[in-house]
Amino acid sequence: MVPILNQHTGLYIDHYELTMAQGYFLSGMKEIPAVFDYYFRKNPYDGGYVVFAGLEELLVSLQDFRFDGTACKYLSGLGFDSSFISYLEAFRFRADIFSVKEGEIVFPQEPSVRVEGNLIETQLIETLLLNLLNFNSLIATKAARIRQAAGDSQLMDFGLRRAQGLGGIQASRAAVLGGFDQTSNVYSAFHFGLESSGTMAHSWVQSFADELNAFRTYAGIFPDHCILLVDTYNTLKSGIPNAIRVGLEMEKRDRKLLGIRLDSGDLAYLSKEARKMLDRAGLGYVQIIASNQLDEYVIKSLKEQSAPIDSFGVGTALATGKGSGALDGVYKIGMVDGRPTMKVSDNVQKSNLPGRKALFRFRDERGKLMADGIALEDEKEFGIIYHPYEQGKKRNVTGYTGEKLTGKVMEQGKILVGKQTPGMIADRVSAGLNDLPEEHRRFMNPHIYTVGISGRLHTLKEKLVNSGNN
Amino acid sequence: MVPILNQHTGLYIDHYELTMAQGYFLSGMKEIPAVFDYYFRKNPYDGGYVVFAGLEELLVSLQDFRFDGTACKYLSGLGFDSSFISYLEAFRFRADIFSVKEGEIVFPQEPSVRVEGNLIETQLIETLLLNLLNFNSLIATKAARIRQAAGDSQLMDFGLRRAQGLGGIQASRAAVLGGFDQTSNVYSAFHFGLESSGTMAHSWVQSFADELNAFRTYAGIFPDHCILLVDTYNTLKSGIPNAIRVGLEMEKRDRKLLGIRLDSGDLAYLSKEARKMLDRAGLGYVQIIASNQLDEYVIKSLKEQSAPIDSFGVGTALATGKGSGALDGVYKIGMVDGRPTMKVSDNVQKSNLPGRKALFRFRDERGKLMADGIALEDEKEFGIIYHPYEQGKKRNVTGYTGEKLTGKVMEQGKILVGKQTPGMIADRVSAGLNDLPEEHRRFMNPHIYTVGISGRLHTLKEKLVNSGNN
Repeated sequence: MVPILNQHTGLYIDHYELTMAQGYFLSGMKEIPAVFDYYFRKNPYDGGYVVFAGLEELLVSLQDFRFDGTACKYLSGLGFDSSFISYLEAFRFRADIFSVKEGEIVFPQEPSVRVEGNLIETQLIETLLLNLLNFNSLIATKAARIRQAAGDSQLMDFGLRRAQGLGGIQASRAAVLGGFDQTSNVYSAFHFGLESSGTMAHSWVQSFADELNAFRTYAGIFPDHCILLVDTYNTLKSGIPNAIRVGLEMEKRDRKLLGIRLDSGDLAYLSKEARKMLDRAGLGYVQIIASNQLDEYVIKSLKEQSAPIDSFGVGTALATGKGSGALDGVYKIGMVDGRPTMKVSDNVQKSNLPGRKALFRFRDERGKLMADGIALEDEKEFGIIYHPYEQGKKRNVTGYTGEKLTGKVMEQGKILVGKQTPGMIADRVSAGLNDLPEEHRRFMNPHIYTVGISGRLHTLKEKLVNSGNN
Repeated sequence: MVPILNQHTGLYIDHYELTMAQGYFLSGMKEIPAVFDYYFRKNPYDGGYVVFAGLEELLVSLQDFRFDGTACKYLSGLGFDSSFISYLEAFRFRADIFSVKEGEIVFPQEPSVRVEGNLIETQLIETLLLNLLNFNSLIATKAARIRQAAGDSQLMDFGLRRAQGLGGIQASRAAVLGGFDQTSNVYSAFHFGLESSGTMAHSWVQSFADELNAFRTYAGIFPDHCILLVDTYNTLKSGIPNAIRVGLEMEKRDRKLLGIRLDSGDLAYLSKEARKMLDRAGLGYVQIIASNQLDEYVIKSLKEQSAPIDSFGVGTALATGKGSGALDGVYKIGMVDGRPTMKVSDNVQKSNLPGRKALFRFRDERGKLMADGIALEDEKEFGIIYHPYEQGKKRNVTGYTGEKLTGKVMEQGKILVGKQTPGMIADRVSAGLNDLPEEHRRFMNPHIYTVGISGRLHTLKEKLVNSGNN
């Protein structure tokens, strides 16, 4: 993967990261080591999990992160100090990054990514990191929920037209990570190696003297990928009968009509009627594709009504993360100059966890996810794990071996992990969700997955909370 | 403005646009003239209006729209016909575009953009156009609502970290069009000529041995732009007292502390306490900046509580269009080969208006917006205007002169309109909203603005609805 933005990459940050960087630079603090964590506080969609995504895009963006001549000139014009500008001109991101794998299932409060480097480089990339991880994870999670509702049906991403601007490029990859089969988005398909698909709009049908002629022409040009949109005029009285006629004509030429698409009306009713009409005509192999304002809830309802739909096209709800719009991930400093630190907010849930931390996962006897533990990096054995901020809540994991989820993925700015295809990451998502007990996956009031902190981390946190100044 | 994507621009489309284009190409229909309209069906945020935005980005993207060698090779690999690929290689967008001005206030059903060209070029750009206009308008509208709530207070966009990926670049410009003063987003500021700003995060404060030292260092390095974040440890007991101490020290050096920022807790209570503490210390000039999950409703509530906040930083809700997530704009064919056409959906609201249409605006005696009329392009006089789809609803505008809002902005692929700064467009938004009666601007159940269709268009529509095949 190469980054989508290919120039002035260093400018894809927030202004305050530059003022802080200049502050550290001019006050002689630039080489002070720091450790930052990425984590989110709340599952999106009132759901029970998040699909962690965006790691590869983050890593390639960091490798490509530069303040080119144009960028430096611009920043100089804003009044930044000339010695600092010279520093930026030569700047390369050289930190280490520890992360869970892309496609892993993660939960609130878990430090899924840890960045270790000097104060300037770790601070400068805050917004870049948050923007990429928050959005990719948001959409991969939405896609996984839709996949959950759709079972084995085919899923196509139709979201680009109402996606949030250029974010649509990233959304389509995240959709495939979460379980979609194809995308309408040609740019994403090209850039990320996804499978694209698409046939016709209503405008195709309207561009011909009549619907039958529009269908016939399309079938003639695309005999092997012919899906006919049947709701331009009247689905049951015109669209499906015309599609059947063309389907039967195709049979005479030894071709098969691939499918029909329903894009309006009651999809449960129309798909059942369409199935009957197609079957009666001997076109039992013709698939039914449905689109129009679908999301995981509508698809779940269609499935419950036994609507005979083979393939769903999902647009806006997928590409924009309908119901949440943003994952609330944050990037907080946990160590500075070898000293653990935490922000003690008025709201206990907004406090971060101090120190240099790793993430562990405990599984039950059947391999199902049981609990996750956040510990200091050098911890190896677990007894009691404590709720990150609710007092008194704890769980005993003695005897269970914690699998360490966070591994080194970047060293001194160089990517250590091999490139993975979207399909490989999608397989990880699928396997991960399969191991997640159903009660954490359900849409209504999912059971909260246990995430605890180790005894040593708990003690460190209490110490910092109780000290006068943190 | 130059487009943000600068290579393979022709791929920023949906796959079905390519299959349809190949279909038109191979069936000898490529030169058939077509007219498409852009319009949306529903105001976002349960509001009463939309700020039309994204036009300049659309026009420069169309001028730059190319299938470069890499793109053609990719499409060839997907199995597209070689003669069609050769056509794409030489393809340039050469259509005419008529549009309302960027920053104009528009309403549901209004054809704000009309594209006239051959079938292929008008069809190919559907998704590109929708993606840019839908998202820019969505965010400009959100920003205008927030500006409405904030009155004369300063507004800063802090959205990039939770924006929808690269869409964050576009969101920051749209925020300024809608009335924001500054953005944290350096890339957008650079690319679009916006004003950027930002000072410090909690991590800055945590990187020093204590808060006072962190504040002092910052004040020393940025004596003219010093805004101190006061909620890292304890806002009232530590943050504000330390900020006051540094503010008084700055006075001795003939400098002035610019402001303090509150980022957690009860902003109404804390801002009032902060104001009292600052005033008592003689620092009445120090501004109070507030951030943390703000939107138009929270800001309205803070204003109603007389919270003494001078400046609001708004992030996620702004950049992602919280409450809507997408504007439901569509792009529908209204004329093909000189023949008016419409899709007759099962849902009357999803039918488009046929023909080559223009948009007119009627104002009352005081210059306030009264009603808009959609008419055929050559119409000049209006009598009765009819509701676009509800039978029996009509309004008499006889005697009022309709101002034509849609003008030619692109001719044969060349941009006709001059470049406008974001500030110029923001002024148009502000003037337009000022002319919109308050009942259409309120957040709760806004009064629906009258949009009617002319008698001739009404007759044409009825004729097509009643004809057997459209």
